[in-house]
Amino acid sequence: MDDTPPKRSAERTAFYDELAPHHMAPLWEVLHALLTREPQTPCVAAIWHYDEVRPYLMRSGALITAKEAERRVLILENPALKGKAAVTHTLYAGLQLILPGEVAPAHRHSQSALRFVLEGEGAYTAVDGERTYMSPGDFIITPSWTWHDHGNDSDKPMVWLDGLDIPLVSFLDAGFMEPGNAETQMAARAAGDSLARYGSGLLPVDWQPTGRTSPVFNYPYARTREALEQMKRSQEWDPCHGLKVRYVNPATGDYAMPTMATFMQLLPAGFAGAPYRATDGTVYVCIEGRGETRIGDQRFAWGPRDVFVVPSWASHAHRAAADSVLFSFSDRVVQEKLGLWREARGAA
Amino acid sequence: MDDTPPKRSAERTAFYDELAPHHMAPLWEVLHALLTREPQTPCVAAIWHYDEVRPYLMRSGALITAKEAERRVLILENPALKGKAAVTHTLYAGLQLILPGEVAPAHRHSQSALRFVLEGEGAYTAVDGERTYMSPGDFIITPSWTWHDHGNDSDKPMVWLDGLDIPLVSFLDAGFMEPGNAETQMAARAAGDSLARYGSGLLPVDWQPTGRTSPVFNYPYARTREALEQMKRSQEWDPCHGLKVRYVNPATGDYAMPTMATFMQLLPAGFAGAPYRATDGTVYVCIEGRGETRIGDQRFAWGPRDVFVVPSWASHAHRAAADSVLFSFSDRVVQEKLGLWREARGAA
Amino acid sequence: MDDTPPKRSAERTAFYDELAPHHMAPLWEVLHALLTREPQTPCVAAIWHYDEVRPYLMRSGALITAKEAERRVLILENPALKGKAAVTHTLYAGLQLILPGEVAPAHRHSQSALRFVLEGEGAYTAVDGERTYMSPGDFIITPSWTWHDHGNDSDKPMVWLDGLDIPLVSFLDAGFMEPGNAETQMAARAAGDSLARYGSGLLPVDWQPTGRTSPVFNYPYARTREALEQMKRSQEWDPCHGLKVRYVNPATGDYAMPTMATFMQLLPAGFAGAPYRATDGTVYVCIEGRGETRIGDQRFAWGPRDVFVVPSWASHAHRAAADSVLFSFSDRVVQEKLGLWREARGAA
Amino acid sequence: MDDTPPKRSAERTAFYDELAPHHMAPLWEVLHALLTREPQTPCVAAIWHYDEVRPYLMRSGALITAKEAERRVLILENPALKGKAAVTHTLYAGLQLILPGEVAPAHRHSQSALRFVLEGEGAYTAVDGERTYMSPGDFIITPSWTWHDHGNDSDKPMVWLDGLDIPLVSFLDAGFMEPGNAETQMAARAAGDSLARYGSGLLPVDWQPTGRTSPVFNYPYARTREALEQMKRSQEWDPCHGLKVRYVNPATGDYAMPTMATFMQLLPAGFAGAPYRATDGTVYVCIEGRGETRIGDQRFAWGPRDVFVVPSWASHAHRAAADSVLFSFSDRVVQEKLGLWREARGAA
Repeated sequence: MDDTPPKRSAERTAFYDELAPHHMAPLWEVLHALLTREPQTPCVAAIWHYDEVRPYLMRSGALITAKEAERRVLILENPALKGKAAVTHTLYAGLQLILPGEVAPAHRHSQSALRFVLEGEGAYTAVDGERTYMSPGDFIITPSWTWHDHGNDSDKPMVWLDGLDIPLVSFLDAGFMEPGNAETQMAARAAGDSLARYGSGLLPVDWQPTGRTSPVFNYPYARTREALEQMKRSQEWDPCHGLKVRYVNPATGDYAMPTMATFMQLLPAGFAGAPYRATDGTVYVCIEGRGETRIGDQRFAWGPRDVFVVPSWASHAHRAAADSVLFSFSDRVVQEKLGLWREARGAA
Repeated sequence: MDDTPPKRSAERTAFYDELAPHHMAPLWEVLHALLTREPQTPCVAAIWHYDEVRPYLMRSGALITAKEAERRVLILENPALKGKAAVTHTLYAGLQLILPGEVAPAHRHSQSALRFVLEGEGAYTAVDGERTYMSPGDFIITPSWTWHDHGNDSDKPMVWLDGLDIPLVSFLDAGFMEPGNAETQMAARAAGDSLARYGSGLLPVDWQPTGRTSPVFNYPYARTREALEQMKRSQEWDPCHGLKVRYVNPATGDYAMPTMATFMQLLPAGFAGAPYRATDGTVYVCIEGRGETRIGDQRFAWGPRDVFVVPSWASHAHRAAADSVLFSFSDRVVQEKLGLWREARGAA
Repeated sequence: MDDTPPKRSAERTAFYDELAPHHMAPLWEVLHALLTREPQTPCVAAIWHYDEVRPYLMRSGALITAKEAERRVLILENPALKGKAAVTHTLYAGLQLILPGEVAPAHRHSQSALRFVLEGEGAYTAVDGERTYMSPGDFIITPSWTWHDHGNDSDKPMVWLDGLDIPLVSFLDAGFMEPGNAETQMAARAAGDSLARYGSGLLPVDWQPTGRTSPVFNYPYARTREALEQMKRSQEWDPCHGLKVRYVNPATGDYAMPTMATFMQLLPAGFAGAPYRATDGTVYVCIEGRGETRIGDQRFAWGPRDVFVVPSWASHAHRAAADSVLFSFSDRVVQEKLGLWREARGAA
Repeated sequence: MDDTPPKRSAERTAFYDELAPHHMAPLWEVLHALLTREPQTPCVAAIWHYDEVRPYLMRSGALITAKEAERRVLILENPALKGKAAVTHTLYAGLQLILPGEVAPAHRHSQSALRFVLEGEGAYTAVDGERTYMSPGDFIITPSWTWHDHGNDSDKPMVWLDGLDIPLVSFLDAGFMEPGNAETQMAARAAGDSLARYGSGLLPVDWQPTGRTSPVFNYPYARTREALEQMKRSQEWDPCHGLKVRYVNPATGDYAMPTMATFMQLLPAGFAGAPYRATDGTVYVCIEGRGETRIGDQRFAWGPRDVFVVPSWASHAHRAAADSVLFSFSDRVVQEKLGLWREARGAA
């Protein structure tokens, strides 16, 4: 087998033309494009430096209100997927701005969302009647089909990275959306309740999970950062990842969300990682430190709040000039559930 | 919230133009297209009548050998997804022909495949060193990344419906493929071994599953048909489905395959089903009987070996003029794992 | 540490005496008896030859009716557990006789029961409204807390081996029992329905398991025997077990019952097994063939319908003079769920 | 069916006598004792007041060293199970004392252990090379078959409640024990490492659980108590339990240990609980507050460090005179895995 289709002949071509109106086509003409030796993603690597992006975000705050926009977000589009509202084939990323006093009204949808807080303090996301106040580095979840709204009671702009499974849900033809009746939800539970209730190594004795998403809505950065700090005392550094953890649903031990795997990793100053690749295209954001990531032949220098994307199966290696912390998300959880995820260490 | 984007102004438009080179875009311009009230699949309903399709298939047998084609298959393309080798957004379907004496050489790939036998008797699929001989109505599995080849030692053409998760795996950027060294595999196990070993309510005492696919490669029609016949004695007919079962992985109770759910259903003569819809676009094929399925406003009459596709969330209802048996497959297993699958009974 | 308690002194002994009225005792006096190097079961090996036992069983048929007895069973007691109604520490075994025309009235209990048919044909067990007709070698389940009754419409006595988790449930203080209102249940489903419905590699599309026991009530010997016969064509013989399979719950892949693991094994004529031991004391019964099992220093020759018990951690080895089939059951499923089960191959 | 065995006759009695030497017995003579309408535990309710017990414990410290005793523990025996080293049918409880400078040498066993700290501060338990320093109210786990030793580097006596599954493992004939070569283990990991690594909503990215026990060895009281305090702000009080949580294995969402379920509950001052019963006999210990528990017809007043036991299926109700916190453990996890656990609310 060579990776080229069989030869065409006049007879064959005529036959293929006859097939088309019957909604049929010869597999052998496209087999080698459909079943490739390795993943052939159209996506490319890219970076969004926060200091370049932030002025646009602030200008958007002057151009439209959160309420009029419903969600005032600048989508981060993969340069190779222009107009598709996608940062990888399956995932969406955007930067959301909410100004003091603003509200982003309640709605719900099949798509799951994660928020990773970049700037500001004291705005909230409300999910199913519980408000979660946000600080930089916090990882916050809006589970599928839960009512949610956002508000900023502080006196500073609040910015976070949104990650959603919009392209995946569209591809599955499985998306529903419903707008809310009121702009904001009634507070039914105390702020921070879900973390106390489900995130302390305990679960209410008769509680059963009702969905596939973690019952903890907010994984605060303070706690995650401290855990990394303690873990590094006993940890041997992984040659590719430094010290890398995944966020966990305490009710099952699975990933925190059913469609997006989320990770945090610590790279110590001077870390020079070995090359790595995996089939899950991944969005990274830096919270602390600075460094660079080589992706294929390109080098991307990053610092706090910079967002970059590594395509599926692209060989990449991280270096850290200072102690650095990277949050990341991908569809690895989906690929693992389907038995498709692969990784490889070392040079391509 | 109305389902239209905010008003454009010269200033806004200019701003959007400024964003584009930075690989950013305003979410509010596309939000209502991304998050729709209900699934908005581009796919349409379609049917392939076997007696119309078969002559093309036989002509393909004269135009190219199985070996030259690697797999001699006519793809069934959704009319709305021309050139995409897709019957639904996520799935591929095709009709494969293998003539007496032919061999389709060994290869393996990340994509999972199912075979549903339509015509002929006595050709085989070999999976991981075990040959499975095929008869009409048999449901045969090629698990992800297993070596497989096909051969026809009989004296008649053999035709089966191929179902693969090619579009899904492409979308996940997770596909690998490897051609084999030899055309056919050595037979390492007796024909039919997997069914005896794993499919009789028993499992070898120290055996552990190594993947997410059923260890049974062949679910013979004779056995499935007899089970339906016995089940109908105690069964109340489901108003939408008649008597519908799913193929099961005996090692886990899950669907037989991790990316494609497979079903068989019996509709008694005179059955007039109630409307039903679900988010999994579904490919049906008739094995016995005749009837028609209304999909939205269209009616599709079907008989043995006809293949038709119902798009996601399309309301549809089956009628049977004779006792009829329908095999079907969809991505329901994927949607369930991700917490996205929905169904509704009754008129849209 | 040596395996003896600390020395006694007058002072210590006086102290221990003082503790007793306060319901306290010194651990160090009993620690070495409580935590032993290896399991120290009180159970012993034993065999019940069917031709010796059967006359007693038949005499019991003359002494008491099934109805008066509620269940006319001769308990097989471990010789070391006299009066405890236990064949191993955790399990109960007995031989049940039901004569032509008799009925064993309906009741239900927390205890799970298995029936392994030894003699007769055509009597039934009814579970939750479904009758299962029994033949020698059939393995039949009465799940926990399901109504069940037995009846013999044939013209011959019917004898089966009962296995229950009575000692285990007593030890857990978790047993409930309820007598029925009527002697026999209404037939709500066709005979054999559960096997067709759940045992053919298919499950009803919207069915969810409601308990931890297999929805298949009857695993007929004909099917099991045929599976063994086919499997042996590809199987390498296990040095200890020959060809050994476990009965499986098709809804989960787990053992067929939550408290008793059940197995069938084929030993070819001339088989001389290597020694083996495991922490689950096991009850064996021969269905076909003849052979002997060495347990520790004792040899137990067995033939059809003979029942023997191997204690926990006792080294044992099977030999077969003819092609032989052994059914067995133990609490291995419990021990595995609790992370306690161990096995060792080779001489003790 | 009445709950009495069939009538004896001379003939029957003679027959039963004949059966005995053959290790058989008539089921119908004992059926009503084996299968009871409700659980009939021999265990009784009991309480150990810490101020009465502590002097004996301190005297034991003068009588024997931790090293000579291997474990210096006073067993709390159920008054109805004298000499059985059991507090319920399945569980063992004891009070362990370790004096300043003492060491309890390393060993490992199949039995799982929990420690609930009652008095002292700063002694440690070492499990698999990680030391956990203990404070009152901490819940500490020694998983099955892990090396563990204890030491007291502080200047005060340290006392904790030991809970083990000794009777259960004995009953299953599945216990192994191995003494260590050295008195104390090398410290391989930083103190507190397991809590940071596995207990903060994160798991190392490539980590897989190796057993059925929580990878977190120490659930500190400070964290548990704070969680209860926060949860009570949103919680409706359960009429029977107040606010009750279970300790969770973050890798699976299951109970923290495979054989013992552990709980913590908060009863607000003035709480007057409704009666409740369940099939899991339960050991309670008070950490804070005071109150009383009515068990059947008896009343047991309790305060800090008092231990009491509620037998299976005994109706009981808690009252709290002050804000009170109760730790408890039982075999509920075992019964749930086996499908046997039941509870009932309201008067018996």
